[in-house]
Amino acid sequence: MDSYPLIRLAPGADRRVKAGHPWAFSNEIAMTPALRALPPGGPVRLEGDDGVRHGVWHFNPHSLIAARRLEPDPAVRIDGAWFRARLAACLALRDRLFDTPFYRLVHAEADGLPGLVVDRYGDALALQANTAGMEAATPLILAALQDLLSPRLVVARNDSAVRKLEGLEESVTALVGQGTARVQEHGLAFPVDLLGGQKTGWFFDQRANRALVARLCPGRTMLDAFCHTGGFGLAAAAAGASEVTLLDRSEHALDLAMQAARLAGFADRVTPLKAEALEHLERMAASGRRFDVVVADPPAFAKTRKDQPAALRGYGKLARLAAGLVAPEGILFIASCSHHVSPGDFTDAVAWGVQRAKRPARLLATVGAGPDHPVHPGLPESAYLKGLLLHLA
Amino acid sequence: MDSYPLIRLAPGADRRVKAGHPWAFSNEIAMTPALRALPPGGPVRLEGDDGVRHGVWHFNPHSLIAARRLEPDPAVRIDGAWFRARLAACLALRDRLFDTPFYRLVHAEADGLPGLVVDRYGDALALQANTAGMEAATPLILAALQDLLSPRLVVARNDSAVRKLEGLEESVTALVGQGTARVQEHGLAFPVDLLGGQKTGWFFDQRANRALVARLCPGRTMLDAFCHTGGFGLAAAAAGASEVTLLDRSEHALDLAMQAARLAGFADRVTPLKAEALEHLERMAASGRRFDVVVADPPAFAKTRKDQPAALRGYGKLARLAAGLVAPEGILFIASCSHHVSPGDFTDAVAWGVQRAKRPARLLATVGAGPDHPVHPGLPESAYLKGLLLHLA
Repeated sequence: MDSYPLIRLAPGADRRVKAGHPWAFSNEIAMTPALRALPPGGPVRLEGDDGVRHGVWHFNPHSLIAARRLEPDPAVRIDGAWFRARLAACLALRDRLFDTPFYRLVHAEADGLPGLVVDRYGDALALQANTAGMEAATPLILAALQDLLSPRLVVARNDSAVRKLEGLEESVTALVGQGTARVQEHGLAFPVDLLGGQKTGWFFDQRANRALVARLCPGRTMLDAFCHTGGFGLAAAAAGASEVTLLDRSEHALDLAMQAARLAGFADRVTPLKAEALEHLERMAASGRRFDVVVADPPAFAKTRKDQPAALRGYGKLARLAAGLVAPEGILFIASCSHHVSPGDFTDAVAWGVQRAKRPARLLATVGAGPDHPVHPGLPESAYLKGLLLHLA
Repeated sequence: MDSYPLIRLAPGADRRVKAGHPWAFSNEIAMTPALRALPPGGPVRLEGDDGVRHGVWHFNPHSLIAARRLEPDPAVRIDGAWFRARLAACLALRDRLFDTPFYRLVHAEADGLPGLVVDRYGDALALQANTAGMEAATPLILAALQDLLSPRLVVARNDSAVRKLEGLEESVTALVGQGTARVQEHGLAFPVDLLGGQKTGWFFDQRANRALVARLCPGRTMLDAFCHTGGFGLAAAAAGASEVTLLDRSEHALDLAMQAARLAGFADRVTPLKAEALEHLERMAASGRRFDVVVADPPAFAKTRKDQPAALRGYGKLARLAAGLVAPEGILFIASCSHHVSPGDFTDAVAWGVQRAKRPARLLATVGAGPDHPVHPGLPESAYLKGLLLHLA
């Protein structure tokens, strides 16, 4: 079989690649009209200007991230067997990490499958191809997943904004089967809307953090602000919280949460509240309402780097409002999923807000996403999720 | 009763104090001969040059950290009742966080008791007074602890190097009772040497991290390098590791570990190895020895800020050696307790080492100390413990 097209790094542009970074940027590549004409998303061989071979990469001549590392061996074929082996390794690791088949099965670069995300809900899968390479390889990936897991339902959840950077359209389609999915977590069952809803349907990244907060909730009142489908609040209710308030702007998400609460038999302890969370926190604080435990887990405040200063002010304000709602000797869990806000800056913003609320605070834990969201050591900045667990005296 | 002596911040030196920082440095204080003559460790009232009252602080005119915040209310008496209330709040929080009475009960500034550390081993306590203020208050603290907990044994473990900065001698003495102590953790019992041994006898800060690693060990071989009294290794053995190797330079620590292993009934699966860990890792790597799970949790490589570059080289080398000992599809947990190494620098050093060992890696989790080691939001840099859980393909 023919070998893949050869592309070369520009002279002096191999420093990061040699250090193990999984990307090569377009300005690091010695572009030619022939390379620019290659179809986006095909495998290529990458070499340095010094002739050092860097293996096989996915290549997209129209993306700023022009090449993504697949394999160190330049002779490897990126075929169905290759995808099957990678996916089997991801599966073996998750089976070692978790007791139940509900997790992020593939988390892109860190799992050796750049740009690919696969979430597993038992026998249902949600795929997200965020690069031209993974878009082109979707038939191979699907075949490998069918071979490994025989899924009843597979949805291509290709509606992430980053696809635009790769020249890909947004769409959500069922690739295999039909019907709905459920996630089981901490003994609860939640209906998940794989074809509608946000992201791939469920935020697996906060799984351990939901358990961390729930353990502090028995016999206590709890507010879950920006609750989406109620992951934190219902885990708290299941752990024995006396009263849980779910606050979100989405009626659809609150409906799914209350379905789960009824299924679990504790809907009488759960109150859904449809409102803009920030505004409603302000109203509740003014009215003197207090909760023993408050969770504030908003959508990303910073979608791009230039949003960062405004996002930090937003997190400071959110921390101030949320801290004001926490009863004496209570708990605040506040999180940011903004890629463009660093852990240190987030902690400083939250410390500022808590101080403004005049609440002496202990920072009990600084947490991130669960181990099914591994981070590539060359991309430490991709650890987007930051959570702070605080005790307020 | 007379009020406490008044000390003033120098003009323009109140920025940090107003922002909630728990310390005032000596160059921020309007020093006078009368202030310099105050006995170290007494409570004082602190005011800004603008007349704003900042409450009651511990003052030591001979320390770089001259004042440490105790209370916002300038009229409060720092008496036995005050210490009892602070300690009771620490106890209530730990009882909420943990099922068993084995934890750090007081973690200094973050617990509102600057410079004081108290570790609890059931009915035995180890105290550490790291400031002149807490040294002077030790009789009040001891009385409050006796009132709250009626401990059988209390040891003053005043041998930390930081006492020198406060003009205090190092000493270890039994304040109450005699005999030995035990810690129970994850179903295991470990003898603890409160009068000899390292630090306050047991590293509570890694408690949750030991459980995190142990869950990945059933049926696997495991190496615990720099094992001290075997916390990681024995948790792994208890979880079902097939073979555990404990590596440490201290025969005394290894003896305590093997006592615990015999007590738990799995000493046949545990091998103690007395050697300098770094050198021995190098020898084992050269001999082709491999383990499914490797833990490397060394003492601080950077004792002072100027050690930092050498410490980072040291962590890089340790990561390279330890990664080389990890079997395919294995796990590496590597930690740093150096105050002077930042989380980002540590991650970069480990990533460099793992890359040098040519091991494709997934960073599964970035962890810190447990919630009984809270962090003061004004001192985020005091979060000294950094642990990285990696999967190596």
